[in-house]
Amino acid sequence: MEKLLKKCQIRNKLVRECLAECLGVYILILFGCGSVAQVTTSQDKKGQYLSINLGFALGVTFGVFASRGVSGAHLNPAVSLSLCFLGRHPWIKLPFYVFFQVLGAFLAAATVGLQYYDAIQAYSGGKLTVTGPTATAGIFSTYPADYLSVWGGVMDQVIGTAALLLCVLALGDQGHGPLPDGLQPILVGGVVLVIGISMGSNSGYALNPARDLGPRLFTFIAGWGVEVFRAGGGWWWVPIVAPCVGALLGTLIYELMIEVHHPTSSSEQQSPGQGVIEGKPVLELEGVEPDSGKTT
Amino acid sequence: MEKLLKKCQIRNKLVRECLAECLGVYILILFGCGSVAQVTTSQDKKGQYLSINLGFALGVTFGVFASRGVSGAHLNPAVSLSLCFLGRHPWIKLPFYVFFQVLGAFLAAATVGLQYYDAIQAYSGGKLTVTGPTATAGIFSTYPADYLSVWGGVMDQVIGTAALLLCVLALGDQGHGPLPDGLQPILVGGVVLVIGISMGSNSGYALNPARDLGPRLFTFIAGWGVEVFRAGGGWWWVPIVAPCVGALLGTLIYELMIEVHHPTSSSEQQSPGQGVIEGKPVLELEGVEPDSGKTT
Amino acid sequence: MEKLLKKCQIRNKLVRECLAECLGVYILILFGCGSVAQVTTSQDKKGQYLSINLGFALGVTFGVFASRGVSGAHLNPAVSLSLCFLGRHPWIKLPFYVFFQVLGAFLAAATVGLQYYDAIQAYSGGKLTVTGPTATAGIFSTYPADYLSVWGGVMDQVIGTAALLLCVLALGDQGHGPLPDGLQPILVGGVVLVIGISMGSNSGYALNPARDLGPRLFTFIAGWGVEVFRAGGGWWWVPIVAPCVGALLGTLIYELMIEVHHPTSSSEQQSPGQGVIEGKPVLELEGVEPDSGKTT
Amino acid sequence: MEKLLKKCQIRNKLVRECLAECLGVYILILFGCGSVAQVTTSQDKKGQYLSINLGFALGVTFGVFASRGVSGAHLNPAVSLSLCFLGRHPWIKLPFYVFFQVLGAFLAAATVGLQYYDAIQAYSGGKLTVTGPTATAGIFSTYPADYLSVWGGVMDQVIGTAALLLCVLALGDQGHGPLPDGLQPILVGGVVLVIGISMGSNSGYALNPARDLGPRLFTFIAGWGVEVFRAGGGWWWVPIVAPCVGALLGTLIYELMIEVHHPTSSSEQQSPGQGVIEGKPVLELEGVEPDSGKTT
Repeated sequence: MEKLLKKCQIRNKLVRECLAECLGVYILILFGCGSVAQVTTSQDKKGQYLSINLGFALGVTFGVFASRGVSGAHLNPAVSLSLCFLGRHPWIKLPFYVFFQVLGAFLAAATVGLQYYDAIQAYSGGKLTVTGPTATAGIFSTYPADYLSVWGGVMDQVIGTAALLLCVLALGDQGHGPLPDGLQPILVGGVVLVIGISMGSNSGYALNPARDLGPRLFTFIAGWGVEVFRAGGGWWWVPIVAPCVGALLGTLIYELMIEVHHPTSSSEQQSPGQGVIEGKPVLELEGVEPDSGKTT
Repeated sequence: MEKLLKKCQIRNKLVRECLAECLGVYILILFGCGSVAQVTTSQDKKGQYLSINLGFALGVTFGVFASRGVSGAHLNPAVSLSLCFLGRHPWIKLPFYVFFQVLGAFLAAATVGLQYYDAIQAYSGGKLTVTGPTATAGIFSTYPADYLSVWGGVMDQVIGTAALLLCVLALGDQGHGPLPDGLQPILVGGVVLVIGISMGSNSGYALNPARDLGPRLFTFIAGWGVEVFRAGGGWWWVPIVAPCVGALLGTLIYELMIEVHHPTSSSEQQSPGQGVIEGKPVLELEGVEPDSGKTT
Repeated sequence: MEKLLKKCQIRNKLVRECLAECLGVYILILFGCGSVAQVTTSQDKKGQYLSINLGFALGVTFGVFASRGVSGAHLNPAVSLSLCFLGRHPWIKLPFYVFFQVLGAFLAAATVGLQYYDAIQAYSGGKLTVTGPTATAGIFSTYPADYLSVWGGVMDQVIGTAALLLCVLALGDQGHGPLPDGLQPILVGGVVLVIGISMGSNSGYALNPARDLGPRLFTFIAGWGVEVFRAGGGWWWVPIVAPCVGALLGTLIYELMIEVHHPTSSSEQQSPGQGVIEGKPVLELEGVEPDSGKTT
Repeated sequence: MEKLLKKCQIRNKLVRECLAECLGVYILILFGCGSVAQVTTSQDKKGQYLSINLGFALGVTFGVFASRGVSGAHLNPAVSLSLCFLGRHPWIKLPFYVFFQVLGAFLAAATVGLQYYDAIQAYSGGKLTVTGPTATAGIFSTYPADYLSVWGGVMDQVIGTAALLLCVLALGDQGHGPLPDGLQPILVGGVVLVIGISMGSNSGYALNPARDLGPRLFTFIAGWGVEVFRAGGGWWWVPIVAPCVGALLGTLIYELMIEVHHPTSSSEQQSPGQGVIEGKPVLELEGVEPDSGKTT
């Protein structure tokens, strides 16, 4: 069996990275949207808002664990974009990463739809609606609260994603001293948890274009129809555009307030420095791989 | 005292492993079913669905801590089966492991029944029922939601167990870099937590034939009668068969998407490689034991 | 300031250990009973049963952190007793440890009484009662549920404390491989959390004679009167006697099922073995202290 | 981009420390007050008291992660004051630290006000009130419960802050053995969590003059008016003065009960001892910085 599996080995690095991003986002959305499905269809009897926060947080944690050693565990187009801007990730890989992130989210949404098929039918009486008392589209993608203006929504997503990047960069910043391997995925999950607890009520803290677009495409195809793009005053573009702006903003703030000022001792820190600088993104463990050893 | 205990030492490896699996599953079910008993008999006043999720999660964590150094902490026949398929566990040990896993679950259910005897009597008015408003069989084993079809239930258990294996294999995958010893049992508990939060409402996320069959046998004997096998349209076989299918499916997906593609540097990774490959199951720490040192 | 403090240094080891046990239990009860006070006097608006579970769990964690390097962080007479039985702690120290554990709990209860004085007055209308709708004695010590028989209560405390010791011994068992320093106090808190979640509703999971007797003595003196010993059919002796029995039972089960069977390689494990065997209790870090270095 | 950022590098140590304290408190308040805003404006539908406790706890954790390597992560004027008293922090830096801590809290409160602008308008009907059924000033700073007397409030804040320092000093005390780097910020968050769970209902556990004053100044300016200083019988000074007293009290208790008694082996512990003693405050990682290497 072990030998049979070995025959399927893929050696191309980009393909492997794309598979890892796809699986990582798949796990994130499977647990995240699954927890919303459980709370919604059980009508808060088998979960509450906090369990949705935990679902997405642990989804991120295990998504990172599944992909960190291969792709660096971006799991978010806005994160990939920021890293490209900072010169820590090649621009050429960006479209591939983004496509497979969205694909992973789409497949996970489909899995949740399958697993909760009976439950959604029973809860909604068979009518798949985007708004109203038994709406189920919110299981998959985010919709704004009634009171939220478009600019309020954009602001909400910008601030949320900036906070995400601020914290994630702080966790990866070697200037604070090392972090035990294996703690970082847990802490990245913790960041998502606290953002869900403190910035979730306005518009469901997407913070991630793939997390929102993939499942929205699934609902569009699977029976909820074009309403998923129309609802909330055409809300769908906000969780795609605003997180990218917010990610860049958060990156800038952290860099300008903390990271660039770390004293660069030309002796100790610079010799493994290349690796340290590459090591700042979410969970860049590429140094673990023998084939990336050439560049170091 | 210390010397007295030393006289009881057993040297046979399989017996020790079986004792460890038995105790590990015992701890898992003692805390898991105990938390359901607390929530049920206190009518949600001293716990809620989230506390049941935490009960099973921490039950798994401490079950793994109690057995990891001896048996590798499978605690689940579906996990043992997967490892046998992959050639990482000898087929000959499988029936022994499974028997003692079920035995541990049975004994734990009996302990919960003893500890909550007064509470169950008070809650149920002395009538031990499987369905109805004061049903108490659900404290011990799982029953499907009313809306769930048989195929929906099979799908639910297959997807849930596949997710479990996906994450557990990712945690143990040395290709992502090492994990501090002692973090893995906590994270395996975290996987069970998030599955309970996101996949628990359909049929109670058994995901483990021993977890479900052992306590069901206890309720069969202890006064709930043959109804425990009849309820939910003869549900009892689903949490036995479906998790085995799901475990194999999850294993395949993880292997094909991530693990087989790790570059095998014939130098570093292969020389301790045997240990690394054996080290992938849940918490294989057999290398710690001197007697397994011969093979390495 | 630093120098001024240095003048107060005490060199006697037993005195230092007693101070550490006193402070450790103080922290445990301050947070534990404080969380009950918060839930009770806010009438579940600023907390729920789960927050009480977390209060005691984190209380244990930080109590252990405050005392582990000095006294080994028993924080529980039943634990001290078990360790004496196993020959891992000198019998002569037992009464001192127990006295200071009870003292710490008493002082913490007094602090909680002070901090929540206004709140308790407002909640209870100034009448300090042990039973009834606005009873407040339960903030400090445990009382059984109405349905619980004496033997049910004894069984509940025996099983609970046995489970506690099972898990704590598993965490400290070097046969499973090492645990990162600093993780153990967190995990011991986790054990208390899961016991509170799964075994808390019958009689409030005292599991610790000091945790229950110290605060009960405070309520006896501070205005609740002799009723605190009479309530629940003279319940007060159960959380003193039963945990001692349970602790010994749990120790025996773990020793006989797991620990005595670890292969003793006469080479590696035995030479630092003395330390390893002494290292099994909760958090014996005595090896850190220079004066204990003589025996090793 | 990386090069562009490098041009903004600041080499002055105090400026860098102040920026780090500012960002650290900013993160703390952004998540902390954000979680209150979410619970308040969603009327407990998207959070509960426990989620506020988690918001502040994780806020502290990530605030510490963002600043620990630069400023030692005090994040609290009362902590800075205690460290100055103990001679572990220069008095000259105190006013700078305090100013930037308050500034960070102010800016974070402004961000929360911006992010929840629509939500606060919708919840309060556009009237920004300090008391009453739709009061929103409590989102930003603390107010006492109705039953609380001034002295009860002072006692509450003194005990709470003393407990905070007790635990934080225990976590940093090298006499208990080392703590893995990266675990300390999580555990400091755990301390804040358990204090919120067990000491939060009287007056909202400010425990930190900056946490309370910064956001109060924001509400004063942003439309809630002078009432924010008048409410609760002129409560505003209590969370400024009492935490300073409590911090000193907690420091004294821990020093006198545990820390000063650690045996000082003149050989091992004293040679790196200077560093060890300096290493006791929250997360003093200054040793990481090359420029502080001169003193060691």
